[in-house]
Amino acid sequence: MAATGGARKLTMADIQEAAERLKNWGRWGAADEIGTLNHIQPEDVAAAARLVQKGRVMSLALPFDSRGPQGGKSNYPALGRFNPIHVMTRTGTDAYAGVLDHRKIRASDDILILPLQCGTQWDGLGHIFYGDHMWNGYDCRTVTSAGAQKCGIEQTRERMAGRGVLLDVARTLGMEHLPDGFAITNDMLEAAERRCNVTVRRGDFLLIRTGQMEAKMAAQNWDGYSGGDAPGLAFETLDWLQARQVAAVASDTWGVEVRPNESDEATQPWHWIAIPIMGLTLGEIFFLAELAHDCAEDGRYEFMFVAPALPITGAVGSPINPLAIK
Amino acid sequence: MAATGGARKLTMADIQEAAERLKNWGRWGAADEIGTLNHIQPEDVAAAARLVQKGRVMSLALPFDSRGPQGGKSNYPALGRFNPIHVMTRTGTDAYAGVLDHRKIRASDDILILPLQCGTQWDGLGHIFYGDHMWNGYDCRTVTSAGAQKCGIEQTRERMAGRGVLLDVARTLGMEHLPDGFAITNDMLEAAERRCNVTVRRGDFLLIRTGQMEAKMAAQNWDGYSGGDAPGLAFETLDWLQARQVAAVASDTWGVEVRPNESDEATQPWHWIAIPIMGLTLGEIFFLAELAHDCAEDGRYEFMFVAPALPITGAVGSPINPLAIK
Amino acid sequence: MAATGGARKLTMADIQEAAERLKNWGRWGAADEIGTLNHIQPEDVAAAARLVQKGRVMSLALPFDSRGPQGGKSNYPALGRFNPIHVMTRTGTDAYAGVLDHRKIRASDDILILPLQCGTQWDGLGHIFYGDHMWNGYDCRTVTSAGAQKCGIEQTRERMAGRGVLLDVARTLGMEHLPDGFAITNDMLEAAERRCNVTVRRGDFLLIRTGQMEAKMAAQNWDGYSGGDAPGLAFETLDWLQARQVAAVASDTWGVEVRPNESDEATQPWHWIAIPIMGLTLGEIFFLAELAHDCAEDGRYEFMFVAPALPITGAVGSPINPLAIK
Amino acid sequence: MAATGGARKLTMADIQEAAERLKNWGRWGAADEIGTLNHIQPEDVAAAARLVQKGRVMSLALPFDSRGPQGGKSNYPALGRFNPIHVMTRTGTDAYAGVLDHRKIRASDDILILPLQCGTQWDGLGHIFYGDHMWNGYDCRTVTSAGAQKCGIEQTRERMAGRGVLLDVARTLGMEHLPDGFAITNDMLEAAERRCNVTVRRGDFLLIRTGQMEAKMAAQNWDGYSGGDAPGLAFETLDWLQARQVAAVASDTWGVEVRPNESDEATQPWHWIAIPIMGLTLGEIFFLAELAHDCAEDGRYEFMFVAPALPITGAVGSPINPLAIK
Repeated sequence: MAATGGARKLTMADIQEAAERLKNWGRWGAADEIGTLNHIQPEDVAAAARLVQKGRVMSLALPFDSRGPQGGKSNYPALGRFNPIHVMTRTGTDAYAGVLDHRKIRASDDILILPLQCGTQWDGLGHIFYGDHMWNGYDCRTVTSAGAQKCGIEQTRERMAGRGVLLDVARTLGMEHLPDGFAITNDMLEAAERRCNVTVRRGDFLLIRTGQMEAKMAAQNWDGYSGGDAPGLAFETLDWLQARQVAAVASDTWGVEVRPNESDEATQPWHWIAIPIMGLTLGEIFFLAELAHDCAEDGRYEFMFVAPALPITGAVGSPINPLAIK
Repeated sequence: MAATGGARKLTMADIQEAAERLKNWGRWGAADEIGTLNHIQPEDVAAAARLVQKGRVMSLALPFDSRGPQGGKSNYPALGRFNPIHVMTRTGTDAYAGVLDHRKIRASDDILILPLQCGTQWDGLGHIFYGDHMWNGYDCRTVTSAGAQKCGIEQTRERMAGRGVLLDVARTLGMEHLPDGFAITNDMLEAAERRCNVTVRRGDFLLIRTGQMEAKMAAQNWDGYSGGDAPGLAFETLDWLQARQVAAVASDTWGVEVRPNESDEATQPWHWIAIPIMGLTLGEIFFLAELAHDCAEDGRYEFMFVAPALPITGAVGSPINPLAIK
Repeated sequence: MAATGGARKLTMADIQEAAERLKNWGRWGAADEIGTLNHIQPEDVAAAARLVQKGRVMSLALPFDSRGPQGGKSNYPALGRFNPIHVMTRTGTDAYAGVLDHRKIRASDDILILPLQCGTQWDGLGHIFYGDHMWNGYDCRTVTSAGAQKCGIEQTRERMAGRGVLLDVARTLGMEHLPDGFAITNDMLEAAERRCNVTVRRGDFLLIRTGQMEAKMAAQNWDGYSGGDAPGLAFETLDWLQARQVAAVASDTWGVEVRPNESDEATQPWHWIAIPIMGLTLGEIFFLAELAHDCAEDGRYEFMFVAPALPITGAVGSPINPLAIK
Repeated sequence: MAATGGARKLTMADIQEAAERLKNWGRWGAADEIGTLNHIQPEDVAAAARLVQKGRVMSLALPFDSRGPQGGKSNYPALGRFNPIHVMTRTGTDAYAGVLDHRKIRASDDILILPLQCGTQWDGLGHIFYGDHMWNGYDCRTVTSAGAQKCGIEQTRERMAGRGVLLDVARTLGMEHLPDGFAITNDMLEAAERRCNVTVRRGDFLLIRTGQMEAKMAAQNWDGYSGGDAPGLAFETLDWLQARQVAAVASDTWGVEVRPNESDEATQPWHWIAIPIMGLTLGEIFFLAELAHDCAEDGRYEFMFVAPALPITGAVGSPINPLAIK
């Protein structure tokens, strides 16, 4: 069950080969903009709803505020993301001071400034390019300073509901949390399926727990979390996810895949294939602690999952409050 | 079934009387911060899930972009809200130009600046004050420039799921859309219940369709929508909503209640009571056209409703993408 | 003294010819990033200071606020600029409410969100491209989503001081304000020199008054101002400005040059040459009313001019408060 | 030449006594909003211009960018200020990609988001309150979430020009930079006057160099700068500045006054008096290294000083690019 230990580094040729092997362009038509979310059928949504039994709603989002995971120290170059900036434009103190009364109503109001991928979030399919192309073969020049003319996150507005499955890899391996650089392999995913008594299948929202976020939260220090080293999916899992036909995959780390990356030639090589080649929607910075505890308690690792993106036209990501409903 | 026509205007005494009659402070304990969302029980969530049959997911959100409902002309003083400002911090054109390749990954990224109540949204319970108090009797000074220390929208993170009910008042009254200034009365709500073959009950998310948004969209002109005159709930509906014990009420207008308001002494008198006195969460600027069409087709006006707020710490509102799932 | 009336429209060939004729690339070395600001010599600054006699300081800036010139109606496509958004992060009402006292100091604080060219401003030399190049032949790909790696406005940090000269063209022509579409020719500039008793020379900051801004302010309506039709400099003035070796040119309009433009093939053809080819810094949306009045009164159309850009690294423009000191 | 060493801490009674002794309310009329800037007379501006001899323009601003002085570590509670966020809305890479050509012009554009006091800046007179009042006795409730209705920075739009004087205290005391906690006394200011061969007088912009900024820049680490401990003016200098009738005082530190503060009962006690009681405009985070070097070289510590605030309506501060012109 060793991780990346002895593995040779991926070359660009490896990545190109994977791209040819896993390319889903055209699979859902030349005009498709949502990729593997197409795996979800209406009957899957209906079936997912039938998983709700005790009526418990669990949020998988971190709070959006100045104590979020951005801004920690990192050994990697910064990406310019910052924690949400929340400002008030009318307040209760204004009300108390009497300065709102000319309107004959006392109300508060607020504004938020946030990088769309600063916290719990969906990556849109316009987020990563492969060469000069993005998902489904669209030209990367369709993502300009004016936003994504193709594959904007708004395309997913009615798609983010279905069956959720938690694979608690940390618990499966008997660890509080997986260490940085730990690559989760296909074998481990299948071990987790057995341990969690669930089988990942077509149309699932697959959630992978590494425990890294909980370790950072326990330490009250986000250093190294955003853009840093982390446990995560190995490159080989791309084939597994393709075979299982998942709708989306999410994790409790900043970037789902293992870091340091398995390649010196490409940064985040798993992303290179997952998003632009396979059309796989990714969820990142998911808070899985409460859900994992509940699943361990009742032994049920499947649930209804609803995580609507804000339909921000032309966005390449969206902050979300994903809900697991059991 | 006349509207506000002959009605006398509400005085401050009327409002005070309503406040005394409808005050829910303490009803769910002195520490409560979510008000009528407490009406939802786990079994209600489970029952709501059982309403899902055909697996259709419908979004009730307007797109969040520069063509949103803010910035139109208004006869009322501006509130300073604006449409979302979406900017890119890395683009596909950067990728094409080769300027990202030093990172060994081609990716785009983006930032959003938005008033939290500029589009489809929940009003938080910190949004409106009654005198020097807010919901549950909290001092209004707990909402400062640093945000809401009480009743922030993040308190609702695991609450926004349950049964949704659509009352299509416009259709009930045989109108494409209700005219501005049209006050929806309790009798009309009950007529809509009969027409829609549904009964509003404890814990429901009640959606009221006036058709106003669709009229504005058809005209391709938002003038008068945000902060302007509108059809909406009459003041008397506060008692009806209290009796029915709804969890939340939302509409396809900017402010749920009828405008011009029923009072010259208070702006939005219905808000004065609903939010700080009753603890009633409001949804505004909901896109109800697709849902209304579906309900008319299959004759089912109840559905699973999931509309998670972003857990923005201390916020007095949140943009949302509410989903109706049938 | 006719305007654009009978003139034939400029073709791309005309523009290319002008580019060859007026190209200053390399004139101040291959590493230059400030163009015609090089015309100013230290002795010019010293001489400009000697123009100060009565000690009157006049601001040439519009207020930066929500009533600024952006957001008016336009017959042209929008550019996405908006008026400054000013928000408070601590207030006097917070102070009054007592919520700041745990810090043992009562203070207010604020944040500004603004397009750098939304009001009185300098255009930086990274603002306009000619084909794939910018000023001095730099590749346009040096201006990425991360900002301008060449010709950022910060390069001008110690350059924006010298002699200012006002040419009051409206007054010269006996008009309150020049009409939209009125092209100011070289002859008119020279007539203004005679009328104003001043000769434009090497290193000057040349201010051109059309009166358009004052007309909009008098009408209390900015419709058509930003990005709309306007009086302004004719294409032929490029040669005149080159010959006179001005350091910069500014006007009381949105874009200095006449609109509708003199070409159907290029938008703002004068900009195509002025900024990337000549390296000419432009000032826009200058408030010239007070200065024009003062110059008319004392008959002196030259003054010390100081208008420091904020040294925003990588910016392609900067808001400013230009001062004329007499 | 000991600093705060043996001094007893200031009590609230000391501060109140200073407030009574130094209060300038009403001195320039009940409607005044600019305080000590009134000390500058037109003849002072004219005299300042006559100090310009060699035509050298020196910028006293730090670059406004993500490497600015905010965000460093601090032992004090954070104030929520951050470094400027600069984003592009059109780029040269867009131009290169051809996506702008439908407009028939290739242009870039940008937006800035910044706390107005995040870098080199003026504090406005609405920035600090004394009890429930601000400068000239205005009620603190005039500074609401909608901005400062009194004493907004825009009031200074034509005032920020005059004689600048540099007192290089570090050099006077023979130190590279003064240590944190070092209190500059009146005696030291007078020693610096002698050393710099200049006398501070009515209407001056007084610049105080401690060398702290240069030490931080040399260390390439801003930790402890913003909001942290620093050398700076002692409380007693308030009387000296009042007697000398300076227009404004600025320094190369975050907050001009010495920190740790001289009081345990008030944070920044010098600010309590300087801004709301005396009406003294403060400049902070001034880059004085280049100017200090020039003054040491030519032995002239006086110069023309021009530092126009952006006239941001209702702002309590403004970023600036102050110029010293010799």
